[in-house]
Amino acid sequence: MTRPVRIDGLQYANWSEKIFRQMQEGGVDAVHVTIAYHENFRETVLNIEQWNRWFEQYPDLIMHGRTGDDVRTAKETGRTAIIFGFQNPSPIEDDIGLVEICHTLGARFMQLSYNNQSLLATGCYEAEDPGITRMGKQVIREMNRVGLVVDMSHSAERSTLEAIEISERPIAITHANPSFWHEALRNKSDDVLRALGQSGGMLGFSLYPHHLKGKSDCTLQSFCDMIARTAELMGPQNLGIGSDLCQDHPDSVVEWMRVGRWSKEIDYGEGSKDNAGFPPMPDWFEDNRHFGNIEQGLRAAGLSDQDVAGIMGENWLRFFDENFGPRQV
Amino acid sequence: MTRPVRIDGLQYANWSEKIFRQMQEGGVDAVHVTIAYHENFRETVLNIEQWNRWFEQYPDLIMHGRTGDDVRTAKETGRTAIIFGFQNPSPIEDDIGLVEICHTLGARFMQLSYNNQSLLATGCYEAEDPGITRMGKQVIREMNRVGLVVDMSHSAERSTLEAIEISERPIAITHANPSFWHEALRNKSDDVLRALGQSGGMLGFSLYPHHLKGKSDCTLQSFCDMIARTAELMGPQNLGIGSDLCQDHPDSVVEWMRVGRWSKEIDYGEGSKDNAGFPPMPDWFEDNRHFGNIEQGLRAAGLSDQDVAGIMGENWLRFFDENFGPRQV
Repeated sequence: MTRPVRIDGLQYANWSEKIFRQMQEGGVDAVHVTIAYHENFRETVLNIEQWNRWFEQYPDLIMHGRTGDDVRTAKETGRTAIIFGFQNPSPIEDDIGLVEICHTLGARFMQLSYNNQSLLATGCYEAEDPGITRMGKQVIREMNRVGLVVDMSHSAERSTLEAIEISERPIAITHANPSFWHEALRNKSDDVLRALGQSGGMLGFSLYPHHLKGKSDCTLQSFCDMIARTAELMGPQNLGIGSDLCQDHPDSVVEWMRVGRWSKEIDYGEGSKDNAGFPPMPDWFEDNRHFGNIEQGLRAAGLSDQDVAGIMGENWLRFFDENFGPRQV
Repeated sequence: MTRPVRIDGLQYANWSEKIFRQMQEGGVDAVHVTIAYHENFRETVLNIEQWNRWFEQYPDLIMHGRTGDDVRTAKETGRTAIIFGFQNPSPIEDDIGLVEICHTLGARFMQLSYNNQSLLATGCYEAEDPGITRMGKQVIREMNRVGLVVDMSHSAERSTLEAIEISERPIAITHANPSFWHEALRNKSDDVLRALGQSGGMLGFSLYPHHLKGKSDCTLQSFCDMIARTAELMGPQNLGIGSDLCQDHPDSVVEWMRVGRWSKEIDYGEGSKDNAGFPPMPDWFEDNRHFGNIEQGLRAAGLSDQDVAGIMGENWLRFFDENFGPRQV
């Protein structure tokens, strides 16, 4: 029997041949990679240009992923399909026409807000959440039309519930965990998770220590037991991994992620002045070679073979098939 | 028998539903449309956004054309495939990475220079022509790699001969006529035409009056006799139409085409102070409904059915099949 597909719903590494080889070694068939945090359109295009170079330089390791079938091709040829996404709507600036342009260039996920208020929605660090904006409603409709998935990982509660309601296609929370397990502004309430599951949306479980119970000391068993409990809450078919792996970056990068160009003052986000850098990853998930640990942990937590295969990648693949292109009528 | 395909190798109209309907009425299966004269990358993207709107608004009349097969689909469904091209390399700015980005967005032709010196090559109005630049050589290689066709319609003689030599794939002169018929800076010498034909390149015959013998009074017979003579010079399989139809534009647009942002003084280009606007088209080719006149004229000039079908579109279609994507190895 061919092994099930293995997909990571979010990474933002300091990309290199080393990491591409680790993906291959870990049997990771597809990764949704962040290509914009605060970049405007032109800067995002520069990031795509860099990826085009890597596709040219490492054709035996990686390929551009635009569809579920591209993931299957990557799997069959022993490569990793790289799927582009934005953590912030900054690449579309104030121009709804850029939604289709970015989709044509390969974008498949876009967060409507990143921690702060955006033109479209509210981020999870704002004190007030007035919900999806006028432009946000228009952009969700356009994203639905072309097949650019709404991602609410860093968005606030009301905006997230409204996005699930307004979007005519299922949305994703590519990288976050349930609040019932670890209370954090970035983690999600039972209400959000239930609404997400009922609408056919996907949750990718994060391995970023600030999202983990016990942070860097979180155990594999605690993580996998949490997944089993979430499967009961919102259905195992709506779950995947979204590791939020930020490998090999200097700490200046987490500062960029948090502050971009929007503040002259440092904002420590989930960290603190005394703990401002990237936290160490749990020792059972340090890089792409460790996906097998999660698979084993899920089995040990009592999940069925089918549920484990779904969570490790089959669910993301089905979601890609259904949501990465214009809607079939 | 199905009718042969009909393709126009260049137009730049003031696009409207009226013109799209005229294309349909004229049985025009594909048009290479100019989407940039002097626009930088971001401005070119705005023009693509406008086309995306038209594709959404007029799905029964037009569709985006990226391949020869898209042209066949357009023909089978009674629509016109719209193929994007640039008259100037301004959309790639000083960034070779934008070659692939623009190709991904649909660009299939790019002129290396437009009348003036560019970063890549020399235009036909410059006094000196030092040939293809350092960046030009790099960009030609990259265009060859991704399948973006080099177009030298507005380039100077030496640059054009060098582009034919340097390019590892055939190039195009999408819209110009032979100098032997009508001497003009924009028309092409026998040397250029022979080299173009020997390399498998394509010449699109222009209907723009400044390129015609007798200008607006040029006769259909004179035009078609010229085509027959050019077929002897460079082979009938290397010929097509590139009408340069600039329909429904105010005269301010021809000024933009000529001056862009590069001069504070007016430059009249092929016109003059007393004749600064768009010249009237010959009465046998006023818009897309008149392609049948050319077809009849070519038959009257003694060309075979096969040659006529080739010139009216089959040659462009073969060229699209061979040159619009990454090279097959």
